Amino acid sequence: MANIEAIHRYIEGHEEEHIAKVQEFLRQPSISAENLGVRECAELLRHYYSELGCQEAELVPTEGHPGVWAYYDAGAEKTIVNYCMYDVQPVSGETWSSPPFEANIVTMPPFGKVVINRGAINSKGPYRAWLNALEAIIAVEGKLPVNIMFTAEGEEELGSPHLSQVVEKYRDRLKRADACFMCSASQDQDGKIRMSLGNKGIVYLELECSGNSWGRGPQQYDIHSSNKAIVDSPVWRLMQALSTMTSPDGNSILIDSYYDKVAPPSEEDLELIDRLVEVFDDSVWKEMYKVERWIGDEKGRELLMRYLYSTTLNIDGIWGGYTGPGTKTVLPHKVTCKIDTRLVPDQDSKDILPLVRAHLDKHGYSDIEVRTLAGYEWSKTSVKEPVVQAVLSVYEKYGIKPIIWPHTGGSVPMYLYSRPPLNLPICIGGLGHGGRAHSPDEYYVIEGNDRVAGLVKDEKSFVDILYAFANWPTVK
Amino acid sequence: MANIEAIHRYIEGHEEEHIAKVQEFLRQPSISAENLGVRECAELLRHYYSELGCQEAELVPTEGHPGVWAYYDAGAEKTIVNYCMYDVQPVSGETWSSPPFEANIVTMPPFGKVVINRGAINSKGPYRAWLNALEAIIAVEGKLPVNIMFTAEGEEELGSPHLSQVVEKYRDRLKRADACFMCSASQDQDGKIRMSLGNKGIVYLELECSGNSWGRGPQQYDIHSSNKAIVDSPVWRLMQALSTMTSPDGNSILIDSYYDKVAPPSEEDLELIDRLVEVFDDSVWKEMYKVERWIGDEKGRELLMRYLYSTTLNIDGIWGGYTGPGTKTVLPHKVTCKIDTRLVPDQDSKDILPLVRAHLDKHGYSDIEVRTLAGYEWSKTSVKEPVVQAVLSVYEKYGIKPIIWPHTGGSVPMYLYSRPPLNLPICIGGLGHGGRAHSPDEYYVIEGNDRVAGLVKDEKSFVDILYAFANWPTVK
Repeated sequence: MANIEAIHRYIEGHEEEHIAKVQEFLRQPSISAENLGVRECAELLRHYYSELGCQEAELVPTEGHPGVWAYYDAGAEKTIVNYCMYDVQPVSGETWSSPPFEANIVTMPPFGKVVINRGAINSKGPYRAWLNALEAIIAVEGKLPVNIMFTAEGEEELGSPHLSQVVEKYRDRLKRADACFMCSASQDQDGKIRMSLGNKGIVYLELECSGNSWGRGPQQYDIHSSNKAIVDSPVWRLMQALSTMTSPDGNSILIDSYYDKVAPPSEEDLELIDRLVEVFDDSVWKEMYKVERWIGDEKGRELLMRYLYSTTLNIDGIWGGYTGPGTKTVLPHKVTCKIDTRLVPDQDSKDILPLVRAHLDKHGYSDIEVRTLAGYEWSKTSVKEPVVQAVLSVYEKYGIKPIIWPHTGGSVPMYLYSRPPLNLPICIGGLGHGGRAHSPDEYYVIEGNDRVAGLVKDEKSFVDILYAFANWPTVK
Repeated sequence: MANIEAIHRYIEGHEEEHIAKVQEFLRQPSISAENLGVRECAELLRHYYSELGCQEAELVPTEGHPGVWAYYDAGAEKTIVNYCMYDVQPVSGETWSSPPFEANIVTMPPFGKVVINRGAINSKGPYRAWLNALEAIIAVEGKLPVNIMFTAEGEEELGSPHLSQVVEKYRDRLKRADACFMCSASQDQDGKIRMSLGNKGIVYLELECSGNSWGRGPQQYDIHSSNKAIVDSPVWRLMQALSTMTSPDGNSILIDSYYDKVAPPSEEDLELIDRLVEVFDDSVWKEMYKVERWIGDEKGRELLMRYLYSTTLNIDGIWGGYTGPGTKTVLPHKVTCKIDTRLVPDQDSKDILPLVRAHLDKHGYSDIEVRTLAGYEWSKTSVKEPVVQAVLSVYEKYGIKPIIWPHTGGSVPMYLYSRPPLNLPICIGGLGHGGRAHSPDEYYVIEGNDRVAGLVKDEKSFVDILYAFANWPTVK
């Protein structure tokens, strides 16, 4: 049996070195949108994996920024896949109280010392804490209790356009793993934890109606609007086409077969919702989003069920013709809109474009162009999975009872791990807190207080999670 | 009887001075949108009226740029009202071969010498030619053959927002005039003349659907689109609302009572169309506007009738949410569109807002805001009016048979003169040619060729028109 107490003491005794490692990782810029320091950061990460003792550690070329692959073979029974994003958001135009890539340690009540840096919480701070924890285990025990396949991408902030290329390269090895674990500083400012076991899928489309593709209306440029008397309007055409896609209230989708694959909530989901509904307070959301009334004025369980199990069709943006101040009389030659649709189990992102296309064709709008800009599948992991139970057991040990969501309404590319061909259960977890992701003065708590863990405790929780999973009884 | 030949000879003998006058007027910038030289140009115009011998010549303060009023009392039987715009379009961002306010004389085949300047053809060049003609008459004959009330505005390029304030100030005097004459260089590059006897009315609206006014949806900013599951969408709402306003093809207006006041074409209009249809060639329009097919694939008389007598409802522009490249997942809190509607006899612009409001209310969209940005009434003058017949007789003298349109599909504020309370017949006329209005290298022909009149001939035509009208038999 491993001496977890000794590992914890090792972490306590190496706090200064561990803080320095966090700072080192943060000080290496990795702004994917601006290609600033991205490759250097990938190299640094590969160096960390080698330093840890990984037998394999290599950059993975993609059509975009490189991924990183590493493998730590502990000769252990179990293997986990670890996902990491090493890129960060831009900082241009922002005003920071401490420069965004100096990783200065400052005091921030009520958390004590924090480190301020772009990527501090999202996600390089907690990730280096995770690597610190792994180093501590190896220093004390000689090796990790599980084998780890590391997969990292440098394009999460761009929507993970090439993560699939990283996963695909190691597919046959990854699919033999037992679970996927993603480390995170999961506590909010009060120390509470919201755990989500999955996410909705998404397809992001662009629809364009133009005189050019229609063969009617102005075909090359906007023309004087007096011609509306004898010239058809692509804008009216798109309005009419869009109006056929939803009920008059905009909330039910009228595209044939759109809901066909929607599955009812599982028994497990319903049990989770029984508990969730007791603590769910929609007034916080109303305040956050500045929304006075939900669809149908629903609340409580009804509202939660709608949030979690609704397939959505949303117009993200629309534009065409003259959009400046005052008057300009033009008959526009084209109009474009962006639409996203959120998918629930068992909907398939690959079905969406054909269904939308068929709907438009059926209504006589075969000229309206539909382009797919992005698409993810939904992802779900059972709360009964050992990796989830292991994380929950560690939270319990620290006196934290997380609020468990069967999935969120948002969309992330976790399906690459959780859905075929890998089919891995996924859990995201760990103590710790940070904030202001994507904003100035992004921070990650180093010291902590009686509610929020600091760096040492974060690292201890990662150690505990790894051993809890290694020791969790598994029925294969 | 006036010696018209002597006046013509006077013009021929003073060509250099008259060209210099045109240049002087053009060189004074008067960009209304940028308030560049506008007041100085109004002062210059007032000076011209005084120089001509007007007993009254004054700036007319408005809420915008000043108008100019002048009165030339010839002690004549008849009085005309003369309208002038003295402002011009901006030139910023344009590349000119000759600076836009140097009024250089250059050779431009096939027209010989032309003057290049912003406002050269639209409309300061022809207007100074008109004043040159009046000066020539006075120099030879001692006085004009009609009394003239001059009304000028410096905001035509802004949509004439305050012309009504100029007209209103002199209303009781203006309404006693016999006709309104507007000078123009009316020839196209082949010397042909298209004469229009009126225009459609217009109302320009802005519709806005927002969470703020609806009380549903995001109320202050765009929110994450995953919330579409439980949050209503102002964009879908506007799509649905707009779709109720037209037939599925976007060409028939489904707003109650919208067409109630539409009058059938008059007998006179139908006679004009009989002649018009013989020369009307829609292929020129198709090429100009890059339109392959008209509504209903109509042609000839059918097409002309639709163009002239259709009330239109056009979406000039629409915008909301994210309109940049790629994907951004937002549920927009508001969406706005600009709509213009062109009105035919006997529709009234004042009816439109209430009809649109009533339509939206009837369909449950009372929260959608409707703002009126601009509005003109339609205008029509009978071809039988002496001022029109006088102009036609001059064209005939010069061997030109104009193509007469009963009205155009566009909209200009001529109703301020032609409709109550003034009720003046209006005619726009004169020989001459220019081009590239609103574009770089705007020009006005000085020399001319065998098809297109130059400055001297333009001025002679104005002299002829004025005497033709003065001498036209009138039944009061």
